[in-house]
Amino acid sequence: MTQLETASAGKVSKEMRQAAKQEPVNAEQLRKLIKKGHAVIPANSRHKGLKPIAIGRGLKTKINANLGTSPLKASLKLELKKMEVAIKFGADTVMDLSIGGNVDAIRAEIIKKSTVPVGTVPLYQAFLGKEISEVSGDDLLGSIEKHCKSGVDFVTVHCGVTKRAIPLSRSRLGGVVSRGGSLLLRWIACNKKESPLYTNYDYILEMAKDLDVTLSLGDGMRPGCLKDATDKVQLHELRILGKLAERARNAGIQVIIEGPGHVPLNQIERNVRLQKKACGGAPFYVLGPLVTDIAPGYDHITSAIGGALAAFHGADFLCYVTPSEHLSLPDLNDVKEGVIASKIAAHAADIAKGIPHARDQDDRMSACRRNLDWKGMFGECIDADKARAYRKRSKIKSKECTMCGKLCALK
Amino acid sequence: MTQLETASAGKVSKEMRQAAKQEPVNAEQLRKLIKKGHAVIPANSRHKGLKPIAIGRGLKTKINANLGTSPLKASLKLELKKMEVAIKFGADTVMDLSIGGNVDAIRAEIIKKSTVPVGTVPLYQAFLGKEISEVSGDDLLGSIEKHCKSGVDFVTVHCGVTKRAIPLSRSRLGGVVSRGGSLLLRWIACNKKESPLYTNYDYILEMAKDLDVTLSLGDGMRPGCLKDATDKVQLHELRILGKLAERARNAGIQVIIEGPGHVPLNQIERNVRLQKKACGGAPFYVLGPLVTDIAPGYDHITSAIGGALAAFHGADFLCYVTPSEHLSLPDLNDVKEGVIASKIAAHAADIAKGIPHARDQDDRMSACRRNLDWKGMFGECIDADKARAYRKRSKIKSKECTMCGKLCALK
Repeated sequence: MTQLETASAGKVSKEMRQAAKQEPVNAEQLRKLIKKGHAVIPANSRHKGLKPIAIGRGLKTKINANLGTSPLKASLKLELKKMEVAIKFGADTVMDLSIGGNVDAIRAEIIKKSTVPVGTVPLYQAFLGKEISEVSGDDLLGSIEKHCKSGVDFVTVHCGVTKRAIPLSRSRLGGVVSRGGSLLLRWIACNKKESPLYTNYDYILEMAKDLDVTLSLGDGMRPGCLKDATDKVQLHELRILGKLAERARNAGIQVIIEGPGHVPLNQIERNVRLQKKACGGAPFYVLGPLVTDIAPGYDHITSAIGGALAAFHGADFLCYVTPSEHLSLPDLNDVKEGVIASKIAAHAADIAKGIPHARDQDDRMSACRRNLDWKGMFGECIDADKARAYRKRSKIKSKECTMCGKLCALK
Repeated sequence: MTQLETASAGKVSKEMRQAAKQEPVNAEQLRKLIKKGHAVIPANSRHKGLKPIAIGRGLKTKINANLGTSPLKASLKLELKKMEVAIKFGADTVMDLSIGGNVDAIRAEIIKKSTVPVGTVPLYQAFLGKEISEVSGDDLLGSIEKHCKSGVDFVTVHCGVTKRAIPLSRSRLGGVVSRGGSLLLRWIACNKKESPLYTNYDYILEMAKDLDVTLSLGDGMRPGCLKDATDKVQLHELRILGKLAERARNAGIQVIIEGPGHVPLNQIERNVRLQKKACGGAPFYVLGPLVTDIAPGYDHITSAIGGALAAFHGADFLCYVTPSEHLSLPDLNDVKEGVIASKIAAHAADIAKGIPHARDQDDRMSACRRNLDWKGMFGECIDADKARAYRKRSKIKSKECTMCGKLCALK
């Protein structure tokens, strides 16, 4: 039985009990959220050593870090190191988006070593090393089955990308920027057929069911720039995703919805409300959102602004964005910077939403600060090493810091 | 005549014409905003070479970068370099908060070299090298006069800090964290007298008037942690500042109001509304606000989140926060990181507020992105050098980047 079926049968699973421990709800309350489809526990029954977590309404905001090789840089060792850093700084899940090297082996190893849920985008693999015309519908569906069977906890499937998106996206300034969305549209155009991920959705549900893989319905039509935010093709896809989410829940499959992208600050609340309404309260998983297009090199900051506001208004799950977004594959330090920025956004939103005890660490920090208790402060820091290095750099012996020196307000 | 007096007399000054050029309003509209006290042009008539800018309602959000030596590190050369970097990356004003070395000479040189408005906090100097008990009321007022005469465009004066703040601030977790606020409370406690900046406010107005120095009414009682946000002592001071702002306007003196500090996301809009209401629509100058206390080393990010939201809700002027906040005096790189984060926040807010043409640069960037026109993209970047370095690092020869490689959505 999937977590959703278990919850619907009125039973509390071991995973619900474990996940509830770190939440402001108890296991029974979590069961009710899962039953309604307002929360999910992505936990493939083949993923050994997983510490289950829940994502959804009223729970702590979760963050995801994307990992993955590229054809130019395919080192399993580096990806495992990235995963270690991501989890150390607070990633609640990781996604393996590898498209270089032996992707099956890399995925297997990441799942084996990961204590947090692992997500993937199976369709990338179907297109690797092939021309669009060489990829069959079965290849696409087959990649999903393969990923489910390899122990992936949640899969992004762009089932809402349909033929209709082609004319609707023509007026866009930024075009189609989702890798999955773009591949599917090219497949549709090449084959002059509807997307097999849309026409074979029931079969995808079946594949997900066996091992309780959570479906993350991808937003292949997410806006890639501010001008395209909340446009007709994005909303068209969202309405389809809402219907697909309902079918998933009815089939006992846990489902979350992916969202933008590039969104101006003033449209973020509206985007969250639209998603919650269209998708029956399914958890919302946003990429950023980035609140300006002009800051490559700093998109961890532009997305922390958008992510904090999105989570405050009800987004449940933030995909990190690293400083290297739009420019190159992230390195180890980019992963760290991305996770920390995203964690700050999630934490700030949890405080603002009134999640019980969300501010406790802040209050402990503030008490240490008032007493100029540096050891105590470092103990409460999101990144104690960086804070310590700043303190050390100033070579000050006394208790105050070099900003105010003897004019320290707290002395 | 001050800008406010000129505006009230129905005249458009040269400074209004110059400042309006970069705004979505014309000179006459700007004159009306200044007349109402909803906008200011900080421009000391002794500051040669200043390019005037306006701060206030309906105008582009401005950002300030704090400079200044400390007793442990007092290099004029470094501060001038910091100013250059700050202006290069978009600081609209700088504040010289020097408390080390020859502060008069440093200030004079910064004003001489700065094309942007320069602000200071005169009272620091009155306390330098002295015990609290050695500082007279005349010393405090004298420091303001000295700074005005030296050509400073706006001065922070903590005139709203009164005796009453002492009992009101006792229940705080974070105490009093404003350097100026804390010094004044100590002076009040030591002298058992009301603050001379409060009792001699009319005299301060006179000093500001001669050279048209804009008063920035400091928030000495700003919260230093989330728990203290929007508390009674902060609001008590804000009400006083509202009355003082009115007296300034009535005397023909331009005035802006300083604000917090550490504020949870859900209280930011309320803080802006309270300020605008209490202070008759005077421009609001916020420090951050920081939306969590646990991220020293990353407070440029925590404050970019808060600053973007504050500006979106109507704050007019953001004081940057650097990664070294709470830890040490910023170095050159911290200044750069701080300015860029603050600029991102201001820019994102301007787009969200619907400032005409605010999104033009984003749209140009997005058009270049869609065409994989890297040269064009670098031309629209907030920091082209950093973006270029990321691109170069990936050693890719083809047009796509290493994130998606051949699966590039845009190719």
